[in-house]
Amino acid sequence: MTRLRVRRRLAAWMAVLAIVAHSAAALAADGAVALVGATVIDGTGRAPVPNGVVVVDDGRFVAVGRAGEVAIPAGAKIIDASGDYVIPGLMDANVHLLLDIEIEPLIKYEGRYGDLIIEAAQVALRNGVTTVFDTWGPRDALLRAQTRIGDGEAVGSRFFFAGNIIGFDGPFSGDFFRSSMLSEQFAKRINDEWEQGVGQDLLWRTPDEVRKRVRDYIHNGHVDFIKYASSGHTHEQYLAFSPETQRAIVQEGHKAGLVVDVHSTSVESLRLAVNAGADVMQHCDYTGIEPIPATTLRKIVDEHVACAAFFVTDAYYQWTQSHDIRENFSEIEKVHRQNDEALIKAGAVIALATDAGILRPQAASNPALASMLKGVPDTPTSLSDSEFLWFKAASELGMKPMDALVAATRNVARAYKRSKDLGTIERGKRADLVVLTANPLRSPDNYRAIRMVMKDGLLVDRDHLPIRHFLTRP
Amino acid sequence: MTRLRVRRRLAAWMAVLAIVAHSAAALAADGAVALVGATVIDGTGRAPVPNGVVVVDDGRFVAVGRAGEVAIPAGAKIIDASGDYVIPGLMDANVHLLLDIEIEPLIKYEGRYGDLIIEAAQVALRNGVTTVFDTWGPRDALLRAQTRIGDGEAVGSRFFFAGNIIGFDGPFSGDFFRSSMLSEQFAKRINDEWEQGVGQDLLWRTPDEVRKRVRDYIHNGHVDFIKYASSGHTHEQYLAFSPETQRAIVQEGHKAGLVVDVHSTSVESLRLAVNAGADVMQHCDYTGIEPIPATTLRKIVDEHVACAAFFVTDAYYQWTQSHDIRENFSEIEKVHRQNDEALIKAGAVIALATDAGILRPQAASNPALASMLKGVPDTPTSLSDSEFLWFKAASELGMKPMDALVAATRNVARAYKRSKDLGTIERGKRADLVVLTANPLRSPDNYRAIRMVMKDGLLVDRDHLPIRHFLTRP
Amino acid sequence: MTRLRVRRRLAAWMAVLAIVAHSAAALAADGAVALVGATVIDGTGRAPVPNGVVVVDDGRFVAVGRAGEVAIPAGAKIIDASGDYVIPGLMDANVHLLLDIEIEPLIKYEGRYGDLIIEAAQVALRNGVTTVFDTWGPRDALLRAQTRIGDGEAVGSRFFFAGNIIGFDGPFSGDFFRSSMLSEQFAKRINDEWEQGVGQDLLWRTPDEVRKRVRDYIHNGHVDFIKYASSGHTHEQYLAFSPETQRAIVQEGHKAGLVVDVHSTSVESLRLAVNAGADVMQHCDYTGIEPIPATTLRKIVDEHVACAAFFVTDAYYQWTQSHDIRENFSEIEKVHRQNDEALIKAGAVIALATDAGILRPQAASNPALASMLKGVPDTPTSLSDSEFLWFKAASELGMKPMDALVAATRNVARAYKRSKDLGTIERGKRADLVVLTANPLRSPDNYRAIRMVMKDGLLVDRDHLPIRHFLTRP
Amino acid sequence: MTRLRVRRRLAAWMAVLAIVAHSAAALAADGAVALVGATVIDGTGRAPVPNGVVVVDDGRFVAVGRAGEVAIPAGAKIIDASGDYVIPGLMDANVHLLLDIEIEPLIKYEGRYGDLIIEAAQVALRNGVTTVFDTWGPRDALLRAQTRIGDGEAVGSRFFFAGNIIGFDGPFSGDFFRSSMLSEQFAKRINDEWEQGVGQDLLWRTPDEVRKRVRDYIHNGHVDFIKYASSGHTHEQYLAFSPETQRAIVQEGHKAGLVVDVHSTSVESLRLAVNAGADVMQHCDYTGIEPIPATTLRKIVDEHVACAAFFVTDAYYQWTQSHDIRENFSEIEKVHRQNDEALIKAGAVIALATDAGILRPQAASNPALASMLKGVPDTPTSLSDSEFLWFKAASELGMKPMDALVAATRNVARAYKRSKDLGTIERGKRADLVVLTANPLRSPDNYRAIRMVMKDGLLVDRDHLPIRHFLTRP
Repeated sequence: MTRLRVRRRLAAWMAVLAIVAHSAAALAADGAVALVGATVIDGTGRAPVPNGVVVVDDGRFVAVGRAGEVAIPAGAKIIDASGDYVIPGLMDANVHLLLDIEIEPLIKYEGRYGDLIIEAAQVALRNGVTTVFDTWGPRDALLRAQTRIGDGEAVGSRFFFAGNIIGFDGPFSGDFFRSSMLSEQFAKRINDEWEQGVGQDLLWRTPDEVRKRVRDYIHNGHVDFIKYASSGHTHEQYLAFSPETQRAIVQEGHKAGLVVDVHSTSVESLRLAVNAGADVMQHCDYTGIEPIPATTLRKIVDEHVACAAFFVTDAYYQWTQSHDIRENFSEIEKVHRQNDEALIKAGAVIALATDAGILRPQAASNPALASMLKGVPDTPTSLSDSEFLWFKAASELGMKPMDALVAATRNVARAYKRSKDLGTIERGKRADLVVLTANPLRSPDNYRAIRMVMKDGLLVDRDHLPIRHFLTRP
Repeated sequence: MTRLRVRRRLAAWMAVLAIVAHSAAALAADGAVALVGATVIDGTGRAPVPNGVVVVDDGRFVAVGRAGEVAIPAGAKIIDASGDYVIPGLMDANVHLLLDIEIEPLIKYEGRYGDLIIEAAQVALRNGVTTVFDTWGPRDALLRAQTRIGDGEAVGSRFFFAGNIIGFDGPFSGDFFRSSMLSEQFAKRINDEWEQGVGQDLLWRTPDEVRKRVRDYIHNGHVDFIKYASSGHTHEQYLAFSPETQRAIVQEGHKAGLVVDVHSTSVESLRLAVNAGADVMQHCDYTGIEPIPATTLRKIVDEHVACAAFFVTDAYYQWTQSHDIRENFSEIEKVHRQNDEALIKAGAVIALATDAGILRPQAASNPALASMLKGVPDTPTSLSDSEFLWFKAASELGMKPMDALVAATRNVARAYKRSKDLGTIERGKRADLVVLTANPLRSPDNYRAIRMVMKDGLLVDRDHLPIRHFLTRP
Repeated sequence: MTRLRVRRRLAAWMAVLAIVAHSAAALAADGAVALVGATVIDGTGRAPVPNGVVVVDDGRFVAVGRAGEVAIPAGAKIIDASGDYVIPGLMDANVHLLLDIEIEPLIKYEGRYGDLIIEAAQVALRNGVTTVFDTWGPRDALLRAQTRIGDGEAVGSRFFFAGNIIGFDGPFSGDFFRSSMLSEQFAKRINDEWEQGVGQDLLWRTPDEVRKRVRDYIHNGHVDFIKYASSGHTHEQYLAFSPETQRAIVQEGHKAGLVVDVHSTSVESLRLAVNAGADVMQHCDYTGIEPIPATTLRKIVDEHVACAAFFVTDAYYQWTQSHDIRENFSEIEKVHRQNDEALIKAGAVIALATDAGILRPQAASNPALASMLKGVPDTPTSLSDSEFLWFKAASELGMKPMDALVAATRNVARAYKRSKDLGTIERGKRADLVVLTANPLRSPDNYRAIRMVMKDGLLVDRDHLPIRHFLTRP
Repeated sequence: MTRLRVRRRLAAWMAVLAIVAHSAAALAADGAVALVGATVIDGTGRAPVPNGVVVVDDGRFVAVGRAGEVAIPAGAKIIDASGDYVIPGLMDANVHLLLDIEIEPLIKYEGRYGDLIIEAAQVALRNGVTTVFDTWGPRDALLRAQTRIGDGEAVGSRFFFAGNIIGFDGPFSGDFFRSSMLSEQFAKRINDEWEQGVGQDLLWRTPDEVRKRVRDYIHNGHVDFIKYASSGHTHEQYLAFSPETQRAIVQEGHKAGLVVDVHSTSVESLRLAVNAGADVMQHCDYTGIEPIPATTLRKIVDEHVACAAFFVTDAYYQWTQSHDIRENFSEIEKVHRQNDEALIKAGAVIALATDAGILRPQAASNPALASMLKGVPDTPTSLSDSEFLWFKAASELGMKPMDALVAATRNVARAYKRSKDLGTIERGKRADLVVLTANPLRSPDNYRAIRMVMKDGLLVDRDHLPIRHFLTRP
């Protein structure tokens, strides 16, 4: 490379850095901000407050109430939101900020997974999802990205992460996509970034040994919560861990003050996880070819276990019934729908969850993925609109609009024990909110009518998100 | 086909039938038989009795003791066995009389699986194994073959069977050999012969539903005992059933008066099975990459749980350590050996088990099997010499010769609750015995020095077994 | 098997034999037969003769003409066919009487392939196809079946066969369906039945060596004609043999007095075969993604090369255009259609050819075949109606009705140099004919309106064909 | 990325650039250079000249002869090579500078294939191979790399390239490594870099169409020579093109003034290529399971056709005979050896050719390549020592040492019609030479005793080659 070309590349980088700085800085408010005139739906489930006032300062809500009942600090910047609707920043209980574990991106972006993660966090933020919980990903890259967002070096959704799912192997393994055309060294190197010592070999181990490994995992690096496999990934009907092992994992998580998530895909894996005392049941609505039994359902309701529910739209559901792309696929989706109806009816604590991330457009032409993506309507796992589809699906399933909003805000915060700071528009909490130009309680499509997104008291420059396009089209 | 050719075929059949009749009939004794002069090792673990007398009548032992202490009935046929050694008929706690589930034999012999089963029972009998327990096979064909042997229509080892392993799918499934070149109809038809309603789909079900299915399985057709999967077959590190489901299965078995066998391949699947109250732990010495934990081992010893142990010879073991033909294969075999040593040392109740059956010689050139068979020394699963190899392996593992003999007789009988009739040379029991020309307590190879085999009081014409050669070379 | 059961089986066989005998014997005529009153379309292309008379004796036509112009022998049996249409027995230039080379039937019926071949010949005969040319099959079984039909031991279409396609390997090879679950011995044994020393390894050889092998092939066993690969089977765009080798093969065939067929699938393989002097171009209308070049087309027309053309119906064609099931599949079928139109327009000598045989119904659920069979309209390769579909396709392609009839009779006979005996209703030829109740020149569907089929002067008992059902549904 | 880190990266780049500049510049000589005292073996086959003088100026040989007979220009830099041996720069008639077409490097280095090519050219140069002929690679990247070396921007072997092999598809195709885990877009994009419009679809085409495509290929971008497939790559026994098409390709190449190479792997593909008038027969010694026929051999000798011969050492040969890793592999290697012996004996024009390139060390653990690489002795296709192995193999095959040297120099230059400038140490030719400290005619190992390499009159700083390590270990 000539000296000249190196200079050009440097100049290009400077330009990118300038844009990033601008995106954040230009939107930072000095002092207090007051949103006035909007109907405020605060995420607690309480009735909407028309002509409300929301005052924000230093990144938090400092006052919320009706006009006239709330004092607006002198010098506060006033944002007129008359006719608009203010809701808490949305939360997603299950995403994978690095979802595209195809061979091509994992090779191409090796060493830059943090950039992919930030890109995804920016797509989420653009859509009003201010907080997400990443439930499977490469721990170190997640930490780097989280730090960059936390330090204000990069804009993006706030996110918390679990790293590996305890008991799963990495991307190039039998749990996901093994290939006979990759070197062992490369496959291992990438798998290690996910596995971090708590991969599938734990299934062979005693409860004591698993306990020790989980403890090491928690203490050898940062995670915000943990997640373990109650059932297998590729082999969904099998149990990954015995009840004793599950309890050991849950105890270690709790001992470290962490919420414990569970990957469950069958009636028995769900039951064992509930019994083990896990906190959040991921895709609790997927139980295979047998619906959630009455006793398990009752326990979930009675003990307020958080159900991270993967609602899908009618359109997607219909597609699953005419495309039996894997053994039992259509049947499992039929039961999935029955479970969602039963959970809603029984009054379970439901949290919005989508499993979403970003797949590059070419993924649909990857033979290994085509059957799941090509021509599929309302694909539920695309961060670019997964939460909008979730609200649509909630509506189609007969969930009350206010319940759906609470499921997407307060319930997620509570599930992850983050409600001190997050989930509702209440005094003292982080100032995350979305301003909509149409009433989301009238139609789920109105969640798309985003006028503004605020995170930590700062307005987001949505038009420029994501700032750098790796997997998304420019 | 012309009339003439049909006649010729008929004649050939008549000839075969005559041979069969001859084999059994010519060897049937009228009235009592007394074996005299041999050293009698009766399978109880008691010291050998030199110059012993064993009197048999009406299929049972009527007297056993030292010469002079036992009265020989008048008119009894006397067999002089001076210098020989008499041991009980051997027993194998785990065989598969229809082991060769390759595509070719399963298509070629469809409708005649009973014939294959009898062929295998005859190979076993020829080697002095008078009773075997078939722990996975096609239930209806097994029943037909059992009936033919029981009725005296065919000669062969006495056998008891479990039919399917509850939780496993049939031969042409992911649990064994799925092929993309068989019609769904055929694959299903054959799989159904094994699965009988208790296949892998049970893994998706609740304990109650599994209980019901097992009950139906037991009552809709004959089985002598049942066996269930505590772990997966292809996916050995996964658990197939939760503890509650395992207990439900065990209860149903016991309620029907049946012994309950378990398929277990990991430390946790073994522990759960012991806790569930199962009676016979198949290949309890295979626990994956982690040896049997001390607590589990203690429980096995303390509660006299039957360990069907798969001893392998040093030659085979060495081969496994230099041929890592599957993920973890060498490591699993290393742990396997450690487990065997630990079980022997701890004084566990060990029962001879081999997983043996008959594979046609061509199986070694089937690409799907070649790595397990081609050039492998002391293949432990070939009925033609599996129990001889087991004794050799027991010796190499340091087991006392008398303990090995008891493991191959009394312990198997006890494990399956058949010791009222089987397992030892004691008055009142079925008259199954083997006469050896060399002392089996001196060298394990002496089990090969078979002079006579008696089953149910009848001498076996070993030279003509198997009578018809399907999978064995003529 | 008990003696009783053997007797029962014998009785069942006797019954089958009786039926077979009956089928043939009951329909045999003594002395001359005269069909009167029908419109006779004699296969020469001449105008139909209304109120015609066809006199048959001793297996041949003895007189054909208008009523009144033809003398009916005294004592002849008169068949009144007033209102009917008499056409020559149909001929198919390309069938595979043993088409179902799936693993299941090839194992199940090993040793009885002759029976399968006869079943197929009977299905053809039932449909009025009195002569077929088998262009790939197991030579020895074909000879046995041919002999049985020739000797009158079995009823069925007259057939001629080539045995292997020189340069192709057998069913369980890369040329067809290789499986990793069959023993080498079995795969080789079956492949050998097809290959007979002239398999794919000839592609490695010099022209001289190929010549020698072909000579041996012709002389070491009976074949009626030979066929060689100008292009590959799985690898259709490649050339199998050089021009020199092709000429050597053709010379050896001609030297032995045999017609030479060619397997060709590309423009160049077709051109080389025409230049080599081969007689019958199989599926000359399949030339890949490039249509037959003008020069090749002209040569085919000018030199009266026989084009065995694989016409397909509009329905099938439309399906191919919306189901691109293999690389280039849709494109190849588009070019196929263009070629057929061009061949018809240019006046090439077209012979009906279908590649047809019998597949058992389960074949559609064999994953290896499903994409070609499941839900495919007008599958062109099913002997049960392939020639009817061919006539329909010919009509849709704009071929004149009389030309289509000639293509299905006289042209096939000429292509294979069998017109001395076969192909038309003319004095002295074998008395093969079909009586239709509707005019085939009016609508191609009328070929289905079969009232009678006569072969070698004997009426066929169509209702009982096939006599034994192996692959066909009962 | 922070500003600081960008600066650091820039600094690192500057350092790299400085090294590159140094490597070339520091070794550039001003004015004439005279090597004196060495034994000069000039590549013509003439007897070595002891105490020789080689004078170089302006990149070319200006005088060569015995000491005393050659005038050394005043001011010439004198290099004392007493006791050394001077030979022409070595030439390789067949390399692939971008050989490592595994998924990982092709993704990781997309856009930088030119860098990989230069790395390989530097490895070759380090070993004294001053000129190579790249016979399959991505045309545009090759051109960029060639330009950089030609312009002196990068150091490396001089190379000439053909781009695609006409009739082959790219790396992610059935001709090489197709994967079901890559997006169609990516696979096509990479394949296109190789195929350039002359891929495998040409096999479907007429001679005229192929001619047109080849003409376009030659004129739409730069190539130094062309190469076409006479046989298939994966399907080695098939012919790719008819004689007419081969002649059309050769004519187009010659019309454009280009040498025409051929890929041939069978006796017939070799014969057709010779007949078509192609200039260089690549791996003419590989003819499958049939050795080169006498007539073809005679023609090759009589017409002085260049045989690019792939000699392999005894060690490698023995390995091939005990590792039949593919169908016919051992047999093909046996015939390969017979051919080499026959070619040498018959006096054919042999040119050193190795098919070599650089594979990263991890390639041996790629399951797709392991059987060809793991534990294989004397792998003949590794640029790091392929030509040394070739000389060793030549010796083992009984070739005369001087003939081997000529095969590696003059014969390659002549084969590619580059002998005006290259191949021998003769006045007026490019000053490429190697100084050895031991006599290469005494032992082939002495080719490894390199003291200096000169290319275009400049000494090469071998110790720093390759300058940047992509695929080679640092």
